[in-house]
Amino acid sequence: MDFITNIDDMRDYSRKARGEGRTIGLVPTMGYLHDGHLSLARAAREECDIVVMSIFVNPAQFGPGEDLDKYPRDMERDRRLAAEEGVDVIFAPSAEEMYPGGYATYVEVSGALTETFCGGSRPRHFRGVATVVAKLLNIVAPDKSYFGQKDAQQALVIKRMAGDLNMPGEIRIVPIVREPDGLALSSRNTYLSEDERRQAPGIFRSLKRAEELASAGELSAARIKEEIRKILRQGRDIRIDYIEIVDADTLEPVETVKGNTLVAIAAFVGKTRLIDNVVISS
Amino acid sequence: MDFITNIDDMRDYSRKARGEGRTIGLVPTMGYLHDGHLSLARAAREECDIVVMSIFVNPAQFGPGEDLDKYPRDMERDRRLAAEEGVDVIFAPSAEEMYPGGYATYVEVSGALTETFCGGSRPRHFRGVATVVAKLLNIVAPDKSYFGQKDAQQALVIKRMAGDLNMPGEIRIVPIVREPDGLALSSRNTYLSEDERRQAPGIFRSLKRAEELASAGELSAARIKEEIRKILRQGRDIRIDYIEIVDADTLEPVETVKGNTLVAIAAFVGKTRLIDNVVISS
Repeated sequence: MDFITNIDDMRDYSRKARGEGRTIGLVPTMGYLHDGHLSLARAAREECDIVVMSIFVNPAQFGPGEDLDKYPRDMERDRRLAAEEGVDVIFAPSAEEMYPGGYATYVEVSGALTETFCGGSRPRHFRGVATVVAKLLNIVAPDKSYFGQKDAQQALVIKRMAGDLNMPGEIRIVPIVREPDGLALSSRNTYLSEDERRQAPGIFRSLKRAEELASAGELSAARIKEEIRKILRQGRDIRIDYIEIVDADTLEPVETVKGNTLVAIAAFVGKTRLIDNVVISS
Repeated sequence: MDFITNIDDMRDYSRKARGEGRTIGLVPTMGYLHDGHLSLARAAREECDIVVMSIFVNPAQFGPGEDLDKYPRDMERDRRLAAEEGVDVIFAPSAEEMYPGGYATYVEVSGALTETFCGGSRPRHFRGVATVVAKLLNIVAPDKSYFGQKDAQQALVIKRMAGDLNMPGEIRIVPIVREPDGLALSSRNTYLSEDERRQAPGIFRSLKRAEELASAGELSAARIKEEIRKILRQGRDIRIDYIEIVDADTLEPVETVKGNTLVAIAAFVGKTRLIDNVVISS
């Protein structure tokens, strides 16, 4: 497995692979890999000749007072896990390499996709995400890149950005990977105390309940939200950031479940903010 | 010469050319070609195997009340002139093709490069320019693209954007082409009445004077500006929008000419806003 930290070296590597007629899959991550990331690498491994995993804790997507410094890092472990999944290259540039002095350009997706929802509580977050993904796509020039459905809004923002800017290559969205008790995998799960960890699966339980309700014909968003709230309140250290029931493509709020509808939750468990979602339909 | 209006067709054309090992030069224009544009095509013709000229009057770079509808268009003439210069492809998408319903993504270069100067009087202009150029670079995937020094600030914004976003390919800046009396070529020159046309070369005369002053050792930006103002005031219908003396790379204002210094003017001649510039050095 190659380990590249320099943008020009990464570009050369990709150019050479393409010249040899090989397809490239990109898995962008912020590292501290868990099985969610590895499921993206496995999807890339199945579909592409070369798998590039980027590991970059992107300062541009953290707001002031957010957990940039605290964000967990373990490059040695990441290298081992990536190698085990058959990743061909880790691309791990420094912040200085990605955002050198005088850096001034940002990619912004406007409208409902970014302004509601996670964007409401983290205004600059998606600008940072769109910018770094545009940069990575330009550097690596992958045939396909892989993102997780767990960050549903992020996946939509990236698809919109890549489509709007006519970036070549396909954006692939991979299903959520969960612990046996339903908790969606996240690097932030490591912040949870034992007690908080026991409460955290309440988030997925509430989403399952929403799914059941819709299957049983309860299509009112307000009533589904109320049921979700009841379940979340059972967790003593759970504090709801948002519960949203929205069109799965546009993120416009809906009053009634109709077609593909995204039920998304962000909640603090203790001090740790977790997100999860399911897509339900009428 | 090919004439392509569809993004996917343009992408396919470029992919095929690259596959055959041919290099591509892109000349982005808003059409109504004059010898300034054609000098860009000639530079591309010298350096690349294939010359693609885009002709697209970009709505995103016109502000409310600016001259989008009034902007001159003559596709028949443009096709003839481009063919005469050996352009291989005109890429002329519709506004709907470039900005379909739901379009939401913009590329923004922040800081001194866009906030001062032309950016001050046309706040959204450079966002529109950076966005459309990012799109064109992604669609055409040129080895080199060609922009004119006449739009000095635009050239710097595009260079910064392409560098910051790690876009592949080189940005080439081509010198200003002038009428025999010094007036910089511009599609907007056609708006001038005969009388205004006679006054307009005052802009270049004032820039030449700035050059002479600097050569003679007058390095004070304030005093050079005053001399420029005197000459511009001789034009009865000339109204100064700005006179800026700035570092030629960063566009930071300077008090004293030092190293490469850009002297840039925007002035209304009647109702027509013209820009011009020279680079002087101490």
